[in-house]
Amino acid sequence: MHKLEQLLARIEPTDRNWEAKAWERLRSQIRPRGSLGELETIAARLAGIERRLSFDFGKKLIFTMAGDHGVAHEGVSAYPQEVTPQMVYSFVQGWASINVLARYVGAEVRVVDCGVASDLPADWPILHRKIGKGTSSFTEGPAMSREDAVSGLLLGAELIEKAYVVEGYQLVGTGDMGIANSTPSTAIVAVLSGKPVAQLAGRGTGIDDATLERKIAVIEKGLAVNQPDPNDPLDILSKVGGFEIAALAGALLGAAAAKSPLICDGFIATAGAMIACHLAPAAKDYLFLSHRSQEIGHATMVELLGLEPILDLKMRLGEGTGSVLAMTIVEAAAKVLMEIKTFEEAGVTDTGH
Amino acid sequence: MHKLEQLLARIEPTDRNWEAKAWERLRSQIRPRGSLGELETIAARLAGIERRLSFDFGKKLIFTMAGDHGVAHEGVSAYPQEVTPQMVYSFVQGWASINVLARYVGAEVRVVDCGVASDLPADWPILHRKIGKGTSSFTEGPAMSREDAVSGLLLGAELIEKAYVVEGYQLVGTGDMGIANSTPSTAIVAVLSGKPVAQLAGRGTGIDDATLERKIAVIEKGLAVNQPDPNDPLDILSKVGGFEIAALAGALLGAAAAKSPLICDGFIATAGAMIACHLAPAAKDYLFLSHRSQEIGHATMVELLGLEPILDLKMRLGEGTGSVLAMTIVEAAAKVLMEIKTFEEAGVTDTGH
Repeated sequence: MHKLEQLLARIEPTDRNWEAKAWERLRSQIRPRGSLGELETIAARLAGIERRLSFDFGKKLIFTMAGDHGVAHEGVSAYPQEVTPQMVYSFVQGWASINVLARYVGAEVRVVDCGVASDLPADWPILHRKIGKGTSSFTEGPAMSREDAVSGLLLGAELIEKAYVVEGYQLVGTGDMGIANSTPSTAIVAVLSGKPVAQLAGRGTGIDDATLERKIAVIEKGLAVNQPDPNDPLDILSKVGGFEIAALAGALLGAAAAKSPLICDGFIATAGAMIACHLAPAAKDYLFLSHRSQEIGHATMVELLGLEPILDLKMRLGEGTGSVLAMTIVEAAAKVLMEIKTFEEAGVTDTGH
Repeated sequence: MHKLEQLLARIEPTDRNWEAKAWERLRSQIRPRGSLGELETIAARLAGIERRLSFDFGKKLIFTMAGDHGVAHEGVSAYPQEVTPQMVYSFVQGWASINVLARYVGAEVRVVDCGVASDLPADWPILHRKIGKGTSSFTEGPAMSREDAVSGLLLGAELIEKAYVVEGYQLVGTGDMGIANSTPSTAIVAVLSGKPVAQLAGRGTGIDDATLERKIAVIEKGLAVNQPDPNDPLDILSKVGGFEIAALAGALLGAAAAKSPLICDGFIATAGAMIACHLAPAAKDYLFLSHRSQEIGHATMVELLGLEPILDLKMRLGEGTGSVLAMTIVEAAAKVLMEIKTFEEAGVTDTGH
């Protein structure tokens, strides 16, 4: 616990002076003020995060955090738990959606076994950092111990901070893999928003009406059995979260500690990011929401965070697919700030508009 | 006129069989059905356009069509007309927004003088294809002759078709430059939608309330004086359009004739695309709207076209900045179709969801 407190203590708000300097340059460029919309907001936030006006985001990395969930056995997903290791194998082979999009964008993909239920072969080129072999079903008690939740947070933070500080990655994004993990993510946003589960639970990988009803009932039972404290993010994470969700939360803490941006994937990754923002409110300054997920509860997450998602492509896949696409927009925003000339530099008539 | 009829006659709808084949593959990939949202729709449309399932969009080109407008002298813009050639010079130097974003995306930029009011130096590396030295103010009669409108259409079509068929470009997008050109674009959407000008006119480059009122009055006068026929796209284009808008319309016709996609920029380029779709309804099959512009009349264009813009980044700049960013999403969609493995190929358990 001491380590977590140390980590949280290192997280500072971004630098408003650098943000203001960025806005000054953006407003003097040869184009109407504000005409690049969200690209400008992203660029200014990057300046505040990195404490400079010039950056290189060429070296990109996606962490796909994998874990299993006891609630998968309650019949809440369209897919059986065996699909988690199968998909990890597909990531290793480079066959899956995240591999295809990461290759296109020029990002590396690192898969982390945070808590897959089955033993994964030791020779798979992933990070073998299992906290447990799947969580317990939260219908019968906490998904994991408070200690395991802290371990998951520290795991995510360690990996992301090391990527930025030691390995020289310049832009890191998150992703998830874990059959049934929209169920704990929905439980988290239900606790944090206070909204009824039925308003937040979505179809995940594509469940039918009967399964959706069961999913809602399972989450309601989990909340009733565990009574997570909305003011204690560790209580929420341990009781109704997941190992990969803990690591996804830790990812934002690690990025913030490294004074670097974190590009957050969709519903599951945002659930993690919300836990991080409750542990350290200043962490939100470092967070970029990659896209607006089709999973219905994501809209409430977006509203609570008060951040504008970069893309809205009706996606609901996870793996890091939203993050990796949004990375191109974030890098483009950085180029906008750095490379577009000012009216003065270019000798274009400036009317101040 | 004969040449235009020949061009229009060559435009056929896209191939629904290839589109269906693409959907079949997309639905068998190792991810939940539909989970990549708009990327799937884009990929399937590309298959219908290109009549194949495998494509390369590596060689990209943006055409930035430049032109001036007689209505600029009515005080409808925040910038004086001298800014058009100044910005063309910035494009030539590689200083402007479109250059920066195109460099990042790996697209070339080709600037076309379709009708800038001033003489541009012959040694500037642009395409010198002036149809006239700025249009006439539509407050006093047609902006241009019907013959000039046809010349502009054929110019755009020729350039884009040549780029695809002769020069080997694989993905072409449009952009615009022309002080005051949101005024004719608003007039076009007013005619095509039948909506009051006051509901469609926006702030363009950032005009104040008084200028916006003047802009509305100028457009209303132009419509009253010219009475463009909503059922005759050439009548609309010549009476209240512009030289670069004619070329932007022709661009879509050229892409459709070449059976290739056209990525369309924001408000001005979409005004052109709408004229093209009225000349040849099947051209819409080849059209991708790059982004949802902040210019208010764009929402009506999007609604009338019934296409989903790819990005929504609150941009309102033009030049091709929306097109070039959307190109990365279009190319990513193509990779999705081609490279993500199927359940069968990957040996992942398929539950049919």
